Amino acid sequence: MERGSQALNYSTVFEWSDKKVRRVRDALAGEEPLQIQLGRQRLSVTMRTPGNDFELAVGLLFTEGIIQSAKDLANPQDSNGSRSDQNVMKIELKNPRTINSKRIKRNFLANSSCGLCGKAYIEECRLQGIKRPNARFRIDPEVLCSLPETLRASQVLFGRTGGLHAAALFEPSGKLITVREDVGRHNAVDKLIGWALLEGRIPASDCALLASGRGGFEIIQKSLLAGIPLLASVSAASSLAVQLARECGLTLVGFLRGRRFVCYCGEERLGLGTSPK
Amino acid sequence: MERGSQALNYSTVFEWSDKKVRRVRDALAGEEPLQIQLGRQRLSVTMRTPGNDFELAVGLLFTEGIIQSAKDLANPQDSNGSRSDQNVMKIELKNPRTINSKRIKRNFLANSSCGLCGKAYIEECRLQGIKRPNARFRIDPEVLCSLPETLRASQVLFGRTGGLHAAALFEPSGKLITVREDVGRHNAVDKLIGWALLEGRIPASDCALLASGRGGFEIIQKSLLAGIPLLASVSAASSLAVQLARECGLTLVGFLRGRRFVCYCGEERLGLGTSPK
Repeated sequence: MERGSQALNYSTVFEWSDKKVRRVRDALAGEEPLQIQLGRQRLSVTMRTPGNDFELAVGLLFTEGIIQSAKDLANPQDSNGSRSDQNVMKIELKNPRTINSKRIKRNFLANSSCGLCGKAYIEECRLQGIKRPNARFRIDPEVLCSLPETLRASQVLFGRTGGLHAAALFEPSGKLITVREDVGRHNAVDKLIGWALLEGRIPASDCALLASGRGGFEIIQKSLLAGIPLLASVSAASSLAVQLARECGLTLVGFLRGRRFVCYCGEERLGLGTSPK
Repeated sequence: MERGSQALNYSTVFEWSDKKVRRVRDALAGEEPLQIQLGRQRLSVTMRTPGNDFELAVGLLFTEGIIQSAKDLANPQDSNGSRSDQNVMKIELKNPRTINSKRIKRNFLANSSCGLCGKAYIEECRLQGIKRPNARFRIDPEVLCSLPETLRASQVLFGRTGGLHAAALFEPSGKLITVREDVGRHNAVDKLIGWALLEGRIPASDCALLASGRGGFEIIQKSLLAGIPLLASVSAASSLAVQLARECGLTLVGFLRGRRFVCYCGEERLGLGTSPK
């Protein structure tokens, strides 16, 4: 197997199929640790697929409430060139004194929490400045059903590995805006939101977000922070995710497969009638 | 929606299917934060499905190298009763002075790393005391293909929600030993390993581990620490996962679906011939 920080690695493997065994050359999704530094402070290490590392770091800093826009960055052009062979992404802020060091401590360093229950987490989201997303956003259920097909067709890495998560932004017409892939679900969303932030597209109030995997609490939280009005996933949503989506006015769709889906809340954006209680 | 720390929550949702809309009662997988404390030290907060919280905490402490066996616990009977409504799991050690506080600092608090690349991570695994798992373990490919079906039949929560990861231990005969479910892949594996540790079944050198989701680096690391000789998943493995499995002598199987799978390494345990390079 070839080494190094690559999005793809090739390896010879055994394929067993109905008692027949053959050797095949297989593409593997890259996975490497990335250390994110804010100035001289080491914030976190995340296992990610190399590529779009600057977007990943920027997206994570935004969704963790450390930065509010690309204007907070000393160099929004990725001055260190996203050198993924280093596996270190150093972010410098324009005005480091303005950053919320309490939040850094809480989110990255202390691993503490005061009231530790779902309700406290939802309260925390309110404090983080989540606003109700665009109430006028509409998307047709038929268009929604077409998104997974469009996403799959654009997943360069997944097609070759079968092993990557993806997150993509779509226009209400069903047109793909952009897609990011990663071995981690959260990373794919952070890369996408990082891209949007750097492009000046946050709040992404006219976009639907499609994420592979399940709709968990943190994915909902990230979507809301980015001002996205609709999150769809191909799998199930968790209880706390649904609770947060309902309280914050996000349209949450799950099990989006073929010509079927489940809408947990915010169904008015899909023209489905009044909300179930 | 009903609130509280439950493995399952019920909610009324909209189901859209080929233009037909109906309201259905849906079971949602529970997701709540759990804070793990070691004595008075707060170690981590993880989003998990309530249930088997003591096993989760014990499994995490073991796979992070903080404890080596159930004998390190002051009370391996779960003295605080896994009260999931509290969302705090406090673990007391028999001899707190013997714990490796450097490791705690590195794994939970400092978020730092010295040489930050896959190779350094693999070196770290060696230092963590990973031994090559049981070379005499054998499982028939036909038996291996039967495991996902057995797992699905035993996934109580998944059947009702469609939204939970699972990890299960199997005997080489294909007999299920036990299964754990969680919204998080890592949590499901930690719960399973925590159970095995409390049952005195570590190293689990005569067991195969089947995990839903993909075979990532951390899942391989956990399997190796538990002394498991074979890890199978229904999805792809990442490059670093394959590298670690090869270097440490684990049999790694991916895409285990129907009568087909891919064997990345350790194929001698499946009787597939010599290893591809």
